[in-house]
Amino acid sequence: MSAISDRDLADYFDYLRLPSISSSPDHARDIAGCATWLSRWLTTVGLVSSTYETAGSPIVIARSPEDPSRTTVLLYGHYDVQPVEPLELWKSDPFEPEVRDGFVYARGATDNKGQTFSHLIGLRRLMETGDPPVNLIVLLEGEEEIGSPHFPAFLADHRADLACDVALVSDTSMIEAGWPALTLGLRGIACFDIEVHGPRADLHSGMFGGVAPNPALALSRILSRMIDGAGRIVIPGIYDDVLEPAPAEFESWRLLPWNAEWFAKATGVEPIAGESDRTVLERVWSRPTAEINGFTSGHQGEGSKTIIPSRASAKLSFRLVPNQNPDRVAKLVENWFAAEFERERLRGTTRCGPKGQPFLTAADDPYLLAARSALEETFRRRPALVREGLSIPATAALQESLRIPVVLAGLGLPNCAAHSPNESYPIAHLGLGARTFGSLMNRFAEVRRSHASSTSRDGRSRC
Amino acid sequence: MSAISDRDLADYFDYLRLPSISSSPDHARDIAGCATWLSRWLTTVGLVSSTYETAGSPIVIARSPEDPSRTTVLLYGHYDVQPVEPLELWKSDPFEPEVRDGFVYARGATDNKGQTFSHLIGLRRLMETGDPPVNLIVLLEGEEEIGSPHFPAFLADHRADLACDVALVSDTSMIEAGWPALTLGLRGIACFDIEVHGPRADLHSGMFGGVAPNPALALSRILSRMIDGAGRIVIPGIYDDVLEPAPAEFESWRLLPWNAEWFAKATGVEPIAGESDRTVLERVWSRPTAEINGFTSGHQGEGSKTIIPSRASAKLSFRLVPNQNPDRVAKLVENWFAAEFERERLRGTTRCGPKGQPFLTAADDPYLLAARSALEETFRRRPALVREGLSIPATAALQESLRIPVVLAGLGLPNCAAHSPNESYPIAHLGLGARTFGSLMNRFAEVRRSHASSTSRDGRSRC
Repeated sequence: MSAISDRDLADYFDYLRLPSISSSPDHARDIAGCATWLSRWLTTVGLVSSTYETAGSPIVIARSPEDPSRTTVLLYGHYDVQPVEPLELWKSDPFEPEVRDGFVYARGATDNKGQTFSHLIGLRRLMETGDPPVNLIVLLEGEEEIGSPHFPAFLADHRADLACDVALVSDTSMIEAGWPALTLGLRGIACFDIEVHGPRADLHSGMFGGVAPNPALALSRILSRMIDGAGRIVIPGIYDDVLEPAPAEFESWRLLPWNAEWFAKATGVEPIAGESDRTVLERVWSRPTAEINGFTSGHQGEGSKTIIPSRASAKLSFRLVPNQNPDRVAKLVENWFAAEFERERLRGTTRCGPKGQPFLTAADDPYLLAARSALEETFRRRPALVREGLSIPATAALQESLRIPVVLAGLGLPNCAAHSPNESYPIAHLGLGARTFGSLMNRFAEVRRSHASSTSRDGRSRC
Repeated sequence: MSAISDRDLADYFDYLRLPSISSSPDHARDIAGCATWLSRWLTTVGLVSSTYETAGSPIVIARSPEDPSRTTVLLYGHYDVQPVEPLELWKSDPFEPEVRDGFVYARGATDNKGQTFSHLIGLRRLMETGDPPVNLIVLLEGEEEIGSPHFPAFLADHRADLACDVALVSDTSMIEAGWPALTLGLRGIACFDIEVHGPRADLHSGMFGGVAPNPALALSRILSRMIDGAGRIVIPGIYDDVLEPAPAEFESWRLLPWNAEWFAKATGVEPIAGESDRTVLERVWSRPTAEINGFTSGHQGEGSKTIIPSRASAKLSFRLVPNQNPDRVAKLVENWFAAEFERERLRGTTRCGPKGQPFLTAADDPYLLAARSALEETFRRRPALVREGLSIPATAALQESLRIPVVLAGLGLPNCAAHSPNESYPIAHLGLGARTFGSLMNRFAEVRRSHASSTSRDGRSRC
């Protein structure tokens, strides 16, 4: 009953054949071609579609005929994909979809063409009824894989056009086949480049070893002081705004298969980092962390070069959780490092890099509750309430700019190899996703109706 | 009265014109040509000279007619030079000597062609008298600038041929113009590559930050624990064999201009490293130190890449002092790191790299005392008893293989820019060096005579 038509599959395959890699300017024409393809497809389905140029990839917006009495749902997805390297690890052409054992193999098969297209098949079915229960806005961007650099400004410019009651995103993962999930939270991010300056130039370690301070040692000391023995970040004030998850979330987490053993198997190393008084899932989903992404100082190549390096630098990423503010965290981090440089009696600099808001949908939001019912209806299993430790900047941007709840109902599976060679998507999820979309729209329509009297048109009361 | 002849200067300039760079195979023919030039020159002076092939650069040995009743002195020098890069910083061609303000500018002007050739001019004068007071062996190698990799084995093979009473080396520095120095000690060295292994592969810092241990943090912690708050290396047993300098040395050091202010000016940073209860000169000359030469982990380039790196590595050099044994130190270091890896609950490896013995001549060695008198005679100033913090592996090799005292009487000046662009040598030092050589030979001859009854022919009793 979740079967899809040959036309659905053929369209999905055509979509997968477009090499819409956003990270390289070499694919700028493929990106533009993909936006055009989508816009045409959405038009054939009965929506009014436009393609908007940005300083980066175009953004596609399509909308169904509007009935002011109905809930307006915004469906967000991204049509850009990750690069395909290393190509030699692919068993088939990443841009020529191939079916093996019920899975479609191609770049973007899951992330995000497969998940989005499952919803779009559902959308086509609703449009073909001639009476969709909601107003639909489809918003597809082409820079998610490079951090959505132009998306927030675009949203700010098109806020009125995009006014809606709820946004639906399928860019996250289910627990396993048959076990759906609603992703309530994502972590934010704040990146830093730290540099410690020692001697004027690299020094001969024989002539100056024992007197000239070594910046690699100083930076090692500073970084080792950043995390205490219990795995907590020592930077004063950094935990001040951290929001503990709702009890319903904790309860849901306890049922999940992702325990310490799972993490050990997935990474090849015991999960010994982070706050020792928290579970592994708390640590990756609801607690801020500070990671050294890179450390560079002095001689890097083969053999020995006996110097005291002139400089040492580290790249750090802090993952942030609701309700931490990346700008406030950046200030705290900068102040702490300034004091540490002084403690080491060396000059140092802290340069703030990319930042992103954490994301949270309340577990008791009416649209979230509606989504729980819709997923349970389709999958005949209560969806898990989960979070993910990574960041999808577009989600916080949608929530903040449009002041709406954002429902993350992923259709991918943990073993679909998103971002990796041989990315795949279960063919069955196209039909399942289409049915889920129908259920979601029906349930969302009911929320709108029951809240019609108390909620303003643009849903601002929910923010 | 220190004047040199036109012939001396012309020969010195010819010697400087040979681009005998040992670090690059491109100069193998120049190296061979330089050895041939030297061997011919030594023959014209009246010595019997031979050139010996090694797996690297040839070694030149020349000897005067032997009188068994006389002291035998071995003059060691090296004919190879440092590379000349960056060439654009040279004010004149590094291999076309140019005289400016009483200084000869050329690569090797001081290190080591100038210093050696000053002695060789003195040697020619002695030979021209027809009655040198000592037997002379000249030993010139061509790989000092790359750590003398084939020299110890060559010495072992030619031990009998090279039997002598004392070795003289001029490859160190005077305090300043007019103030000579005898370098009693040089530090040894032991290099290590440390690697800490974390996750199986680089991990997404969002998905795994807070559970997967970060090897860059672990290595930072380990390295920060290696040195305590007082600047001491915490590795158990590492100070066990350290020999404190003789009181005469400490006394001499107190007169020297190299204080904390000097180090700050020379390096551009306050000399805050090392053992806080020791003077700056003690720290660089007579105390072991541990330096991080390089630290590498994760993302190194521009921008951010939010990973937990799979590995972190550091390159370390320990400078060792008399009587530390590099092999024993290597064991201690390896054991300490093994325990630290365990403490971090991560796999780690310690790979031992190049090692070199520390060097020491006793301040009361009869040949050293003779050298003090000789230098005082030439310079009319008491020579300082100094050390240097760096390593010259050939010195320890000579001492150990031939079991003789090695007298380091440098003729370079601190501002001669050895190893740097615009290397120079004061022309006056050619004549001064030649006179010093004469004085040294006369004084060494006296030592031999006064010890003749109690010392065996090969000088083993002095070891």
